[in-house]
Amino acid sequence: MGSASNPLVTSSVVDDSPLPSNLNQDDLKKLAAYKAVEYVKSGMVVGLGTGSTAKHAVARISELLRQGKLRDIIGIPTSTTTHEQAVSLGIPLSDLDSHPVVDLSIDGADEVDPALNLVKGRGGSLLREKMVEGASKKFVVIVDESKLVKHLGGSGLAVPVEVVPFCCDFTRGKLEELFREAGCKAKLRVKSGGETAAVTDNGNFVVDLYLERDMGDLEAASEAILRLPGVVEHGMFLGIATTLIVAGKSGVTVKDRFG
Amino acid sequence: MGSASNPLVTSSVVDDSPLPSNLNQDDLKKLAAYKAVEYVKSGMVVGLGTGSTAKHAVARISELLRQGKLRDIIGIPTSTTTHEQAVSLGIPLSDLDSHPVVDLSIDGADEVDPALNLVKGRGGSLLREKMVEGASKKFVVIVDESKLVKHLGGSGLAVPVEVVPFCCDFTRGKLEELFREAGCKAKLRVKSGGETAAVTDNGNFVVDLYLERDMGDLEAASEAILRLPGVVEHGMFLGIATTLIVAGKSGVTVKDRFG
Repeated sequence: MGSASNPLVTSSVVDDSPLPSNLNQDDLKKLAAYKAVEYVKSGMVVGLGTGSTAKHAVARISELLRQGKLRDIIGIPTSTTTHEQAVSLGIPLSDLDSHPVVDLSIDGADEVDPALNLVKGRGGSLLREKMVEGASKKFVVIVDESKLVKHLGGSGLAVPVEVVPFCCDFTRGKLEELFREAGCKAKLRVKSGGETAAVTDNGNFVVDLYLERDMGDLEAASEAILRLPGVVEHGMFLGIATTLIVAGKSGVTVKDRFG
Repeated sequence: MGSASNPLVTSSVVDDSPLPSNLNQDDLKKLAAYKAVEYVKSGMVVGLGTGSTAKHAVARISELLRQGKLRDIIGIPTSTTTHEQAVSLGIPLSDLDSHPVVDLSIDGADEVDPALNLVKGRGGSLLREKMVEGASKKFVVIVDESKLVKHLGGSGLAVPVEVVPFCCDFTRGKLEELFREAGCKAKLRVKSGGETAAVTDNGNFVVDLYLERDMGDLEAASEAILRLPGVVEHGMFLGIATTLIVAGKSGVTVKDRFG
């Protein structure tokens, strides 16, 4: 992939041997996940991500524990779904109250920009993910190449915002107003097939922001969103990821962020 | 009280006739509340505050409606408690989803600094209050003179922060760390007489910050608190109040903030 466009990011192709041409998107997710689990060492406190890519990492950690290749791992799940998966696979678990410093987290992302800023939370677990991953010394993001974007929101899919249920339509309107210049449409997320609002692990709702154009300064956008009283958290993860692992048809690439 | 120390605030004593010397604190609260209700005009959408001072204003609005001196008022309550009081008094109610612009809000405060920045939420309703009062064209704060402080946190009482229950001790620790230089102790609020956490109207917990010294730049403090993923909202109301009504033994004073 050559050098990244951001001076703080270095890139290296770790395996450019031709991959079998019949790999599907899930195979690519698994490739990235397995590569990330190579960073896990015995004795570590490990943040366990949520979603279709992260679940491969959780399964792989469990496999290495069973094989005796990893020992003394404590997992910190980022959602009730991951909690259940990890319990079913026998991974010892704890939480941030008991382990406020996490050695390493591994999780997927919905979008990754060239500076390793992320959009996360389309799966509805952004707040717990941000708490755990923000408390991590190292945060390895694993994606297939379809998740790379030039700017956050650029995939045309949503930037999610977790909001309190109280007067959520008021908050939805305020969010839309905030990004009017970026052509923002803000929609309350509903349960699949339903008319009722989707509820997060924390009992909150989600407003999805659909943007036609670049939001501009991401830090400023973040502060403006957080300043709205009805907002609990948003799905932009700025300056939190330390490493990105991308699996594509042409191989697996690792990027590290410095500074 | 003379001119205020902040150039954006003007002060006028509206009634300096000697008050009866036997006025207690609740009488002073009522004096301020009644003065504030003079700002309410027929046809207004009015934010109804929460707490021992605001309840006098709600009762007064109801009285004027019954007397026919006010008509067509729509109240927007800032808590379930105020909702119940207003319903019992027959004040027509709505919410921010239906009325996203509020003409006037009236509410008490736990602390007021010279620039009309507030600490609110010791009563546990800060988030709904901030949503309603932040959406108000005019926000009249009513206090007795014991609530005036040189800097926020200066009364020795808490600056409350609403947090998600998930790993709240982790968030508590992060908050304490943030204001270490101000000698901060952060404590999870418990139910009176109990060991279990107090729960807000939104199903969240409250962490109370006790500060030995000034927090410094309030805007920076606000952003730093909001940036913590486990934080929903804090009880500092910066630049939201437009008018302050203070009742003291020597009379009632009105201050307006410009800019």
